[in-house]
Amino acid sequence: MTGSFTPTPGDRFSFGLWTVGWQGRDPFGEATRAALDPVEAVYRLAELGAYGVTFHDDDLIPFGACDSERESHVKRFRQALDTTGLVVPMATTNLFTHPVFKDGAFTANDRDVRRYALRKVIRNIDLAVELGARTYVAWGGREGAESGAAKDVAAALDRMKEAFDLIGEHVTQQGYDLRIAIEPKPNEPRGDILLPTVGHALAFIERLQRPELYGVNPEVGHEQMAGLNVAHGVAQALWAGKLFHIDLNGQSGVKYDQDLRFGAGDVRAAFWLVDLLETAGYDGPRQFDFKPPRTEDSAGVWASAAGCMRTYLILRERAAAFRADPRVHDALRAARLHELFRPTAEDGLAGLLADPRAYEEFDVRAAAERGMAFEHLDQLAMEHLLGVRDGAV
Amino acid sequence: MTGSFTPTPGDRFSFGLWTVGWQGRDPFGEATRAALDPVEAVYRLAELGAYGVTFHDDDLIPFGACDSERESHVKRFRQALDTTGLVVPMATTNLFTHPVFKDGAFTANDRDVRRYALRKVIRNIDLAVELGARTYVAWGGREGAESGAAKDVAAALDRMKEAFDLIGEHVTQQGYDLRIAIEPKPNEPRGDILLPTVGHALAFIERLQRPELYGVNPEVGHEQMAGLNVAHGVAQALWAGKLFHIDLNGQSGVKYDQDLRFGAGDVRAAFWLVDLLETAGYDGPRQFDFKPPRTEDSAGVWASAAGCMRTYLILRERAAAFRADPRVHDALRAARLHELFRPTAEDGLAGLLADPRAYEEFDVRAAAERGMAFEHLDQLAMEHLLGVRDGAV
Amino acid sequence: MTGSFTPTPGDRFSFGLWTVGWQGRDPFGEATRAALDPVEAVYRLAELGAYGVTFHDDDLIPFGACDSERESHVKRFRQALDTTGLVVPMATTNLFTHPVFKDGAFTANDRDVRRYALRKVIRNIDLAVELGARTYVAWGGREGAESGAAKDVAAALDRMKEAFDLIGEHVTQQGYDLRIAIEPKPNEPRGDILLPTVGHALAFIERLQRPELYGVNPEVGHEQMAGLNVAHGVAQALWAGKLFHIDLNGQSGVKYDQDLRFGAGDVRAAFWLVDLLETAGYDGPRQFDFKPPRTEDSAGVWASAAGCMRTYLILRERAAAFRADPRVHDALRAARLHELFRPTAEDGLAGLLADPRAYEEFDVRAAAERGMAFEHLDQLAMEHLLGVRDGAV
Amino acid sequence: MTGSFTPTPGDRFSFGLWTVGWQGRDPFGEATRAALDPVEAVYRLAELGAYGVTFHDDDLIPFGACDSERESHVKRFRQALDTTGLVVPMATTNLFTHPVFKDGAFTANDRDVRRYALRKVIRNIDLAVELGARTYVAWGGREGAESGAAKDVAAALDRMKEAFDLIGEHVTQQGYDLRIAIEPKPNEPRGDILLPTVGHALAFIERLQRPELYGVNPEVGHEQMAGLNVAHGVAQALWAGKLFHIDLNGQSGVKYDQDLRFGAGDVRAAFWLVDLLETAGYDGPRQFDFKPPRTEDSAGVWASAAGCMRTYLILRERAAAFRADPRVHDALRAARLHELFRPTAEDGLAGLLADPRAYEEFDVRAAAERGMAFEHLDQLAMEHLLGVRDGAV
Repeated sequence: MTGSFTPTPGDRFSFGLWTVGWQGRDPFGEATRAALDPVEAVYRLAELGAYGVTFHDDDLIPFGACDSERESHVKRFRQALDTTGLVVPMATTNLFTHPVFKDGAFTANDRDVRRYALRKVIRNIDLAVELGARTYVAWGGREGAESGAAKDVAAALDRMKEAFDLIGEHVTQQGYDLRIAIEPKPNEPRGDILLPTVGHALAFIERLQRPELYGVNPEVGHEQMAGLNVAHGVAQALWAGKLFHIDLNGQSGVKYDQDLRFGAGDVRAAFWLVDLLETAGYDGPRQFDFKPPRTEDSAGVWASAAGCMRTYLILRERAAAFRADPRVHDALRAARLHELFRPTAEDGLAGLLADPRAYEEFDVRAAAERGMAFEHLDQLAMEHLLGVRDGAV
Repeated sequence: MTGSFTPTPGDRFSFGLWTVGWQGRDPFGEATRAALDPVEAVYRLAELGAYGVTFHDDDLIPFGACDSERESHVKRFRQALDTTGLVVPMATTNLFTHPVFKDGAFTANDRDVRRYALRKVIRNIDLAVELGARTYVAWGGREGAESGAAKDVAAALDRMKEAFDLIGEHVTQQGYDLRIAIEPKPNEPRGDILLPTVGHALAFIERLQRPELYGVNPEVGHEQMAGLNVAHGVAQALWAGKLFHIDLNGQSGVKYDQDLRFGAGDVRAAFWLVDLLETAGYDGPRQFDFKPPRTEDSAGVWASAAGCMRTYLILRERAAAFRADPRVHDALRAARLHELFRPTAEDGLAGLLADPRAYEEFDVRAAAERGMAFEHLDQLAMEHLLGVRDGAV
Repeated sequence: MTGSFTPTPGDRFSFGLWTVGWQGRDPFGEATRAALDPVEAVYRLAELGAYGVTFHDDDLIPFGACDSERESHVKRFRQALDTTGLVVPMATTNLFTHPVFKDGAFTANDRDVRRYALRKVIRNIDLAVELGARTYVAWGGREGAESGAAKDVAAALDRMKEAFDLIGEHVTQQGYDLRIAIEPKPNEPRGDILLPTVGHALAFIERLQRPELYGVNPEVGHEQMAGLNVAHGVAQALWAGKLFHIDLNGQSGVKYDQDLRFGAGDVRAAFWLVDLLETAGYDGPRQFDFKPPRTEDSAGVWASAAGCMRTYLILRERAAAFRADPRVHDALRAARLHELFRPTAEDGLAGLLADPRAYEEFDVRAAAERGMAFEHLDQLAMEHLLGVRDGAV
Repeated sequence: MTGSFTPTPGDRFSFGLWTVGWQGRDPFGEATRAALDPVEAVYRLAELGAYGVTFHDDDLIPFGACDSERESHVKRFRQALDTTGLVVPMATTNLFTHPVFKDGAFTANDRDVRRYALRKVIRNIDLAVELGARTYVAWGGREGAESGAAKDVAAALDRMKEAFDLIGEHVTQQGYDLRIAIEPKPNEPRGDILLPTVGHALAFIERLQRPELYGVNPEVGHEQMAGLNVAHGVAQALWAGKLFHIDLNGQSGVKYDQDLRFGAGDVRAAFWLVDLLETAGYDGPRQFDFKPPRTEDSAGVWASAAGCMRTYLILRERAAAFRADPRVHDALRAARLHELFRPTAEDGLAGLLADPRAYEEFDVRAAAERGMAFEHLDQLAMEHLLGVRDGAV
């Protein structure tokens, strides 16, 4: 069984350079780890069984590097990709670390900053495409405010729309095969961030000039920071045809952004998310966007990265066993899930209105008394998660 | 000054029958107050200065009443409306109290329950229109789940869409001048509720057959239960042209649904919300959807209702003074809000890409050093809220 | 292996009558289940393998029953206990359901209510002892407030102390072998509840006249409603010698009080709690204080109750395997847990101050570079939880 | 009236050097402001009307400075104090910024780190006393864990106790007139922090060798990060005789640690806290422990600091007016607060048990029907907060 939990490129696991490369600076402490050479990251990730690596521009090329430095960094990186076979399925832009972005980027009050941010993004999109990326993630980082008058939300959304429309225009003009995935987050580092959840981002996309170009990149912990059920949000994104990418990690409830390794925090939520991703037709990368805790040295970093993948594979096996179990089939039927898949009114509005069994003759009391049998079903799920195969349940 | 805080019908305040009529049953305790006759509620609300009253079907007509009882209840209610001049700007349907709805209504696994729920809604829409309502609020109440396999979210959203499309068809066929406002809530009474935030509801609407018929009815406390900035969510709804109604109340952060009187809980959030509603062109009712705490007797109920309106009027005055203050104008300018209203690229994509001042020659360091002056601005807002008129700030 | 997950009285599982007997009334809905006869509850719990049953006075004897009714209820209950062998390890008093307690009981502003509450408690303590209880749980329920001036906290704590001191006096005078366990909760049904966490209750106890009589009864979900780590709180209670009882259930983070079946919600938190209870010398009952969701009928209620026990037993096995695994021993050593058990300064203050290696010659940089190896250790824990026995980790 | 909102030393406002000196590094961004010379901070704070300044050792003397540098820094600082008249009411030690403290200080698994931390603290206590401090604040910062097995909580509390006992021994041996105030925090930068709330810290203190030496230093935002009512926690600390210091700031609910300026976030909570501090006999410093948002330049920093003090003074005035208002006196009486101050049983246990009016003859129904009149009272508080002086309420 062990073998089945060893990742291979076919599992489509990717990692951001900023994840394994995180040095451990937090609001109360300095770095605990040395900088990690992106080339070394590529080699180590390949050894561990990942298939992809992703980056912010500044992860790969130090902010402010001149063109020749830039070329040199890109060349070394590309060589490492070629050697290892790792791909770059996605790239993104750092619009938050430098103090120039302290009030945001696309929605900064300062127009010059907005123009600079757009140019920085477009430049990095060109690089992303050059390196083979098919998805461009947009996490604003600081598009928000701490105080009420500091940001006019309608104006800010106008500017956000303008920025995304310009990016879409560039992608279209250049003929890039690239889709843009917006990443929501409710707060931190700003008091409140615009497009705080998957829902807000999905709604925003519908007001863009080329909505088909845009989707979402939900991050497990970001949804959980708002106390939301991450599998529900991802399911709505899939339902809307908009799950373009996903960031997997862990979070222990409503608190600061923890970026724990996948499965840490709420492992039941992780189970249901894996179940959804594996059954609902998502075929993009399984990206881990986590931060190995700053207590760890380099060995701990790689243990943490390996743990993300192993846990995913374990959960994938468990979810598949759950879905294949005849006891589960019976339990789903008892819970009347099959009825949920059936239209409510195949007979149309007229039929429904004319049907006395629907209302006038409906036995409300009898319907109210039917148990839903959800607890038995959920206990079966629990035992599959925990690897109890031959339960008496 | 006191006079200005006395509500009049021109202020467009409305109350649900279920608010002042709440008897105080909670998960741990029995009713502390007797039932309130809807007719008495109408008279008292009119005396207090409200302009409107709203209802769930079962608030007005006891569940299961026969047709003649129904008529009698409606007749008495209508007479009270006529006598007092109160209007019914909105109505809604109770799809949560009766045990038949224990697994939801439009998304109940049980198809019979879904059909029954739709019929109950349509019947009540007919009554709502008859009583003059222009908005129909849809709060599912129990459309959600406590456990992962109990609800297939994609199927549930299909059923939700089917239900709203059928309602829209009925409204259209009947030629009703009625818009439907979906009310989001993240959880309680279900572990997780579908369409948990304003964003999710806005996104969902875009997939309906007649999206123009549907908007949202944000409730202050529901957004705050997810730790979200309610004024931000309402602003996004306005930006999307979808703020069809609003439910005002109070909530002390991420916890159970409190339904405090308006202003209680986070009064600064209430201030920014009033500022937004009064300046962004919202012209619908200011509905209070609160529960007078069960510690109160009847006198306390009406004190609480009056307090909702007074606080709104105080905040309205304070927000207007804030916006009119020349010091605030200066502070907004210092915070460069005027730049946020200016397009980022009037010169279009080509112009932006060709402008060396946007990127190549942009003085990042100088831009980074400019302070945003938000703290001064926010302290001015604080002092306006607190009624400090001649501050030294 | 299945057999080991079948509960027996030796496992010391107990259930409150109010748990399996919950009828499903919630803030938005009526009861979905009929009342459960306490005698039937005793028989069913015994069949399922529980060893104990607990109650609020009003669970067993309807509020306001006359003395002969009271005797009759107690007699039937006692007979069921005798027949089944179930014991009553604990009892508690309902100070929250009746509207008379709308402002609390021991801290109600109304002095008459406080006196009544004390008498109700003392009467029930006498019954509890008569039925063999060794622990008396005190959950105030409504000792709190929604608004700032409604409760003077210092005065309320004085009254709370007075009440507990009087109870302690009664227990002492009667020579009862009974300890009192205070149950903290942060909020709901009051906006804020006094003694909101395990910590606050532990601190309060130290100001009582007979602190040795009082301990705490932490409830999993109550601590998690404040975003706290429940195993940490329970560990502090154990450290203080004050874990007198425990209420096990599930909660999905910071939201309304869910009372899910044990393990639902955060199963990793449940794992660490079981690990702690089983290794730290707690020998009291493992009480389940949960509410079978109101979607369930009677069969679902018992499935849910059985699930609580099975999950506990599974987690107990997993925690034991974790602690027994030589790989875990190595990982704990690598994480330097053994050093944490060693005093920091066996050499005393003088020795510490005189030791240049402690400060002047301490190699800060070298110490800072040592990794803590926590991620490897936590991944081992994850895999034990998930029943992955032969991992490559 | 403006004059009354201008702070003077008599108001006892103090600021940490790390507050106005915060450079704006956050988890996602680099510093936005240059370092602030502590001497400049002293001069500016004095100009603004503060009376005190506080520091971590490393705020004043760079980590690793040699003895002569140390002396020089202290000398300059002391001269600035002498010139301005500012006092040092409190000092504290940085046990979190340097990577050596990545797993904590007093409870680090690594014993060498624990010894080093203790020496660092004791050294700084000597300096604190030398500079006149009467309170020593202990915020561990990183005493906690992200994963379950990484920390044995009982062992960690043993080490925490050992550390505080050693510090108490040093203070006693040296004859210092210094009290130690423990600062709780629930999480961030660790996933869970030991002694997470005021309650847990108060309970811990009771197990120390010299409990009289130790109290708490509640921070507004830290309690609110756990969704707790900060005035309630502070009131319990006062009730226990343990409010040794306080850190005032702002927080918008359960999320990352915001350290907003005082009053920002939940201004009603701030009002009730000021009301409590000003009426319950607290005579220590009113310390602001906030972070001027990183959007601000130097002018914004001082505007933010000034805003903290002005808001405190405004709230102080409002709370005093509330307490002086005859309408409030009436409302408090209607809410029966005076009864809460009266003992429940002056007649003792025997009297209570013998009193038929307490139970047998108690008219439960009549008592249940009395309204508590809290809403009227709270609306009066709201209007006092908002400066509405002549309300019709």
